[in-house]
Amino acid sequence: MMTTTDEQTVTILDQGHVTSPKGFKAGGVHCGLRKTKLDFGWIHSDKPANAAGVYTLNSFKAAPLHVTKAAIDSNGKIQTIITNSAVANSCTGPEGEENAKLMQQLAAEKMHVNVQDVAVLSTGVIGVQLPMNEIKQGIQSMTHDENYGAERFEQAILTTDTVTKHTAVTCIIDGHKITIGGAAKGSGMIHPNMATMLAYMTTDANVGQKALQHVLSDVTNDTYNMITVDGDSSTNDTVLFLANGEQPNQELTPEHPEWPVFKEAVKTVAETLAKKIAQDGEGATKLVAVHVQNASSKPSARKVAKAVISSNLVKTAVYGADPNWGRIVCAVGYSEEPVDPNIVEVKLGPTTVVSDGLPVAFDESKSKEYLSNEQIDIYVNLNQGNENACAWGCDLTYQYVKINASYRT
Amino acid sequence: MMTTTDEQTVTILDQGHVTSPKGFKAGGVHCGLRKTKLDFGWIHSDKPANAAGVYTLNSFKAAPLHVTKAAIDSNGKIQTIITNSAVANSCTGPEGEENAKLMQQLAAEKMHVNVQDVAVLSTGVIGVQLPMNEIKQGIQSMTHDENYGAERFEQAILTTDTVTKHTAVTCIIDGHKITIGGAAKGSGMIHPNMATMLAYMTTDANVGQKALQHVLSDVTNDTYNMITVDGDSSTNDTVLFLANGEQPNQELTPEHPEWPVFKEAVKTVAETLAKKIAQDGEGATKLVAVHVQNASSKPSARKVAKAVISSNLVKTAVYGADPNWGRIVCAVGYSEEPVDPNIVEVKLGPTTVVSDGLPVAFDESKSKEYLSNEQIDIYVNLNQGNENACAWGCDLTYQYVKINASYRT
Repeated sequence: MMTTTDEQTVTILDQGHVTSPKGFKAGGVHCGLRKTKLDFGWIHSDKPANAAGVYTLNSFKAAPLHVTKAAIDSNGKIQTIITNSAVANSCTGPEGEENAKLMQQLAAEKMHVNVQDVAVLSTGVIGVQLPMNEIKQGIQSMTHDENYGAERFEQAILTTDTVTKHTAVTCIIDGHKITIGGAAKGSGMIHPNMATMLAYMTTDANVGQKALQHVLSDVTNDTYNMITVDGDSSTNDTVLFLANGEQPNQELTPEHPEWPVFKEAVKTVAETLAKKIAQDGEGATKLVAVHVQNASSKPSARKVAKAVISSNLVKTAVYGADPNWGRIVCAVGYSEEPVDPNIVEVKLGPTTVVSDGLPVAFDESKSKEYLSNEQIDIYVNLNQGNENACAWGCDLTYQYVKINASYRT
Repeated sequence: MMTTTDEQTVTILDQGHVTSPKGFKAGGVHCGLRKTKLDFGWIHSDKPANAAGVYTLNSFKAAPLHVTKAAIDSNGKIQTIITNSAVANSCTGPEGEENAKLMQQLAAEKMHVNVQDVAVLSTGVIGVQLPMNEIKQGIQSMTHDENYGAERFEQAILTTDTVTKHTAVTCIIDGHKITIGGAAKGSGMIHPNMATMLAYMTTDANVGQKALQHVLSDVTNDTYNMITVDGDSSTNDTVLFLANGEQPNQELTPEHPEWPVFKEAVKTVAETLAKKIAQDGEGATKLVAVHVQNASSKPSARKVAKAVISSNLVKTAVYGADPNWGRIVCAVGYSEEPVDPNIVEVKLGPTTVVSDGLPVAFDESKSKEYLSNEQIDIYVNLNQGNENACAWGCDLTYQYVKINASYRT
């Protein structure tokens, strides 16, 4: 199981999409929920696919999550995923549940699939009922095939995102090239410790349903759950992963000799999407990665990394390109992990700024220049053990405040 | 112990200061750590006072905290407190410890008090050694008496604060009027779950040292530990409470029949200072209070209140006067407390916006008007038990980002 994976066995496609794996189609339309932007999208597999999901831990789970979870729990299969933006169908009570179920049923009829094989996701404002006439129009627009449908799907799921987020990789399993694709949306209410935001992953590999859930849960902990934009975990966060078995590889399970290759490929897709979400965080100008090294345990490494990436003071310092490492050390200190301050090392990119818990003289202007890059790496070496973790986030800017002080008005 | 206190027995003074209790003096000078503002202050008791302290839980505790804690632990007494702003003496290693001890020693000599009766606090930038020449000048300026010294002290301890924070109350114990005074500084790196920021409380009441620590720890949980500005807990947070026994009341302990009155008076001072800190949070334009009602336990009530008050999305919505209650509900949901979404009620000031977990029709323009006030009350009724808690914070504004993107430059 702990076989070292040669990362070069995973190839990242130039133009990877959720439809890159064989047998997946996607599409998106404008049905009237938003003024002019696409607002209704779907992913469709030629045949029912093994399905896995991870969902928000928020107590206020939105109606579509219940419907989707019940669908996957019933037979482990999903063939069609539908998603609307603009309205989250969250805090909408029995009417919201009914609407989510109706969406599922109408989509099943339109696409000629089993009702229990339809997943429903929504994103947008909380506490507003879905305008069902528009939703119905969206469902009636669904087709089994579409040119460039993936790009339209990726646009239809966005809210305050500024760019679409998609990727795909290939790897060889049993001599067959299998493909894993993905698409996601951010960009507010994004915080670790949850199955964050909406993300969709697809593969044409033959993967057992339990193995699919296993790899998704596992990989989510190191990818989607390690990003934060604003510390707020949404009521609608969901990651779905469909495997339709179009490729003739032997069924992938953790016992398969090439499982580590598959897992690495899945992780590559998840990490790529997670970083794209962090990079496109509301108002963000920079992607920040916090690498915690040599922690005494994996959970400890994750917790320290999340404390630093979540700190508003670190985020504003990065925005201002201020090498104010004191704020990093401070966040490490309040992470509630048993850190020994006297042996901690901190680096801003290539530059050591703290060693043995004490400041090291460094060229401030060079570090300021480094912090002006669009990608910033912060290294925190705890020197306590040999577990590592990485968390991704973004800077906190005027634009974040602007976007969120006037989201609905 | 659970005696109901008549709050009218606690009288808030019009011009209350840390020197309002009998036998306390204070002062502040400019010693050269900051450009022109006062940067060195002291509080002095005519005789050694029983002392209690609560300190940051941050692993990176600043040097002065070790010195102050050791001083109080040695004999439970403090007679003189000195504080500098501008430099926090945090992450400064053995040199920092030596400097903090030297400050203690020099102040003891200057004020003719026992070395172990001097408390030392610092606030400002992390990772810079104290300019000891300037500090020594500050210590040499100390006097036993000063006109309007309290105001100068309250100015000398500020960093990014825009106003001084002070208060005092009186109550009657054993027929004697006793006074409790306080002063504090904020205004960044402020977050609950810690003995937050620097706060100083004094009283002329006769209070046992153990009882003093008991009431301080207890009251801190409901006041200083319930505020947040930015979610960052400093390396220097400290609250000190001195009781010099100038009043001839019987020694106050939890068994004293008027202990609840005293505790209520202490809480009034602590809560007043805590709210002043939240209100003067970096960039803040509004004081926000989140009242969580009818939780199943006190810790649960506190945790939910803190989740809501800490949410960047709630804070920006308040800034934009946007009655976006979905963000409040969302924060309640991710608080990790076992909340039942179907029975939650939310009010924005006088207006119910969520009932039984579902939106209630309300006049948005009136709520927008309400949210334009300088003080906002948010009520979250969990309907699960009968424990309440209140957390205080502020809105998140452009100005916060501006202050923190360029703190040092």
